Amino acid sequence: MEPLKVALLGCGSVGTQVARLLTAHAGELAQRVGTPLELIGIAVRTLDADRGPDVDTRLLTTDAPELVKRADLVIELIGGIEPARTLILDALSSGASVVTGNKALLAEHGPELYEAADRGGVELYYEAAVAGAIPILRPIRESLAGDRIRRVLGIVNGTTNYVLDKMDTTGASFQDAVAQAQALGYAEADPTADVEGYDAAAKAAILASLAFHTRVHADDVHREGITTVTAGDVASAKAIGAVVKLLAICERTVAADGSEGVSVRVHPAMIPAGHPLASVREAFNAVFVEAEAAGELMFYGRGAGGTPTASAVLGDLVSAARNRVSGSRGPGESYYAQLPLRPMGEVITRYHISLAVADRPGVLATVAKAIAEHGVSIETVRQQQIFEPTDEGQGGRASLVVVTHAATEAALKATVSALAGLDIVTAVVGVMRVEGED
Amino acid sequence: MEPLKVALLGCGSVGTQVARLLTAHAGELAQRVGTPLELIGIAVRTLDADRGPDVDTRLLTTDAPELVKRADLVIELIGGIEPARTLILDALSSGASVVTGNKALLAEHGPELYEAADRGGVELYYEAAVAGAIPILRPIRESLAGDRIRRVLGIVNGTTNYVLDKMDTTGASFQDAVAQAQALGYAEADPTADVEGYDAAAKAAILASLAFHTRVHADDVHREGITTVTAGDVASAKAIGAVVKLLAICERTVAADGSEGVSVRVHPAMIPAGHPLASVREAFNAVFVEAEAAGELMFYGRGAGGTPTASAVLGDLVSAARNRVSGSRGPGESYYAQLPLRPMGEVITRYHISLAVADRPGVLATVAKAIAEHGVSIETVRQQQIFEPTDEGQGGRASLVVVTHAATEAALKATVSALAGLDIVTAVVGVMRVEGED
Repeated sequence: MEPLKVALLGCGSVGTQVARLLTAHAGELAQRVGTPLELIGIAVRTLDADRGPDVDTRLLTTDAPELVKRADLVIELIGGIEPARTLILDALSSGASVVTGNKALLAEHGPELYEAADRGGVELYYEAAVAGAIPILRPIRESLAGDRIRRVLGIVNGTTNYVLDKMDTTGASFQDAVAQAQALGYAEADPTADVEGYDAAAKAAILASLAFHTRVHADDVHREGITTVTAGDVASAKAIGAVVKLLAICERTVAADGSEGVSVRVHPAMIPAGHPLASVREAFNAVFVEAEAAGELMFYGRGAGGTPTASAVLGDLVSAARNRVSGSRGPGESYYAQLPLRPMGEVITRYHISLAVADRPGVLATVAKAIAEHGVSIETVRQQQIFEPTDEGQGGRASLVVVTHAATEAALKATVSALAGLDIVTAVVGVMRVEGED
Repeated sequence: MEPLKVALLGCGSVGTQVARLLTAHAGELAQRVGTPLELIGIAVRTLDADRGPDVDTRLLTTDAPELVKRADLVIELIGGIEPARTLILDALSSGASVVTGNKALLAEHGPELYEAADRGGVELYYEAAVAGAIPILRPIRESLAGDRIRRVLGIVNGTTNYVLDKMDTTGASFQDAVAQAQALGYAEADPTADVEGYDAAAKAAILASLAFHTRVHADDVHREGITTVTAGDVASAKAIGAVVKLLAICERTVAADGSEGVSVRVHPAMIPAGHPLASVREAFNAVFVEAEAAGELMFYGRGAGGTPTASAVLGDLVSAARNRVSGSRGPGESYYAQLPLRPMGEVITRYHISLAVADRPGVLATVAKAIAEHGVSIETVRQQQIFEPTDEGQGGRASLVVVTHAATEAALKATVSALAGLDIVTAVVGVMRVEGED
């Protein structure tokens, strides 16, 4: 058989490894596909950068559109919206299958890309877009295709997991932990996309789309980053036997009338130390899936890095190539359910609320009453004296840590506002959701 | 479109759940496949058993061959070799795709089944055969198809994991832990297939076949069960910061001349408490995969049970049905590599050796010399006095625990024999391999 022509768009850390592995494993890949994969070109912005020994510089070109025209299979690793979007659309409409790791593009323009693939009679794969090397999209799309997914809880951003893990293990502040992550190459010089949760939100949108057969856009995701997480929050988590993680949470919701919906959100949360996600350390990723029949599943591995991500890209490439050889097509976009997106206020969660209060009798009763008035019930409360009253007439101070039972986000938020307004509450020191328990 | 006709062979705990879910989720399954799935019959041995409310008794038949003839898709959940083998071969040759959870059959007759599928132009799926609900075969076959797998370490038998976990957490003996497992339904009345490692060995053969593109038969798997694991072994593991697990180990080996091979084995081993597999408790399963590009991955979930296993069966059914609708075919058998199976003696491992020795000077030197003479080096040694010498002239007794560095199984075995023959060694109390570290 004729070799299949592969075009690589982008030659950063992932692209370089893809190029290397396509050469190093050419023989095995040909056996697996049934025909050789020939890398016909690598589109780059500039020809004169040093790309190391793994890249055959004769393959480099700055003319990506021309390269795409000649390819049977296109690997897009440029990132960002344009020109990636146009190049992918051109590839799909000219009959080339596309493999991409572009989470932002998928979360913004997924349906448009799928439709182009459908019209072109070709395929769109993007395992590398979520959780790097970890096979998670294919298991959700195919292995769990006979099941009903209830919830997906993911640690899908390695930078923030590294930062939170350092804060947990060393007591470092957020700023110091970010600086460490930057020094080790786990965080960008401008870490905004990671620490503000934009990266995780795009991945959450992709996971939710696949898990619930519903189109979910990046803008549909409620997003809170970790910039406001303090060393105190991390210590508070420890005190209740929990750790703080930035979670991507995709949930099937069921209203009182039985109608279903979807909530998708990214925020830091405390999870119990015994939860399988709690032991995901350093820059590792993991996705925890709860399905009606399968029960609890977890997928764990490296969420980033050139070589691990290249593994996911090449897995997709082999699938697309095999299907091209056999004239087959894998599953396309599945959005028949189109469940409504539920607003954040309706989400059911639990709060960990840390308050500075006056140290005098009746404080706990007052706080408990304010909480109860919002229909929220308390799971545990812990009171601690910080300073005794002084002879100079200054009142004593104490801290009060409340963990609530499950309630709606709206009720919990209103509760916190009410507590902040109480005379005896000096300050609301920290509020964080608690996840990972039913 | 016409509904696809589904035949279910076997109606035990998994079959009952498959029947229930096919009905309960009929609408969603039809959306995902593109056409309805119609359960046309359930083949059973006897019609008069009570099957509960989830099984429509009008579908029951004792004539499995006739049922298979009418089906587009056949789900085989009878287990064992015959009549399952003949029924599957009949289905495949009559143009029906087959979904099975039959690990023994796959490990014995996999190539024959694949060839029949190939001739029939249909598909063979068996995700449920290994690690129940956990998507592991599809990720290995497809997601990692662009990577090179180095090693697969699996906890793939829930019964033995439950037994070993109880021994670890409660100090119970093997017999007591098995009795507990039986009382809770985690172990059969005759637990031989589980505790002697036959079940895990069949799964290891399947995993190795897929991971290394090499035909591996159940008989190729070196197999040791857990019946000889004592409470003392479990305590010894604890003392070195490890836990005992029954592992299915599939390894790519590289000889001095660079030629590759495969070793596949099932045996109890100590793994460090910090290894992700160490925290797999109760009857859970997990498969740890080390791949050249992806690095370390772990897949975790329920390895057995009617409902979880039914999830895997239905995932496969949806894939087979989708492909039938679109005229596609997933990847078939891949055995181009046909790496030679290496004998157990060549396996590189580490030993934990527990000796009862005479308590007198020079014992450690004598033992160390005997070990060194076999080309094995010692990582740690721990010596403990048990009884002081008595006035009546009885010699004192001590224990010596040696953990070796990596060496061949043959060298380690010879070492243990030599130690057993030493005057100063009263008894070889326990020998166990140590895995999960490089």
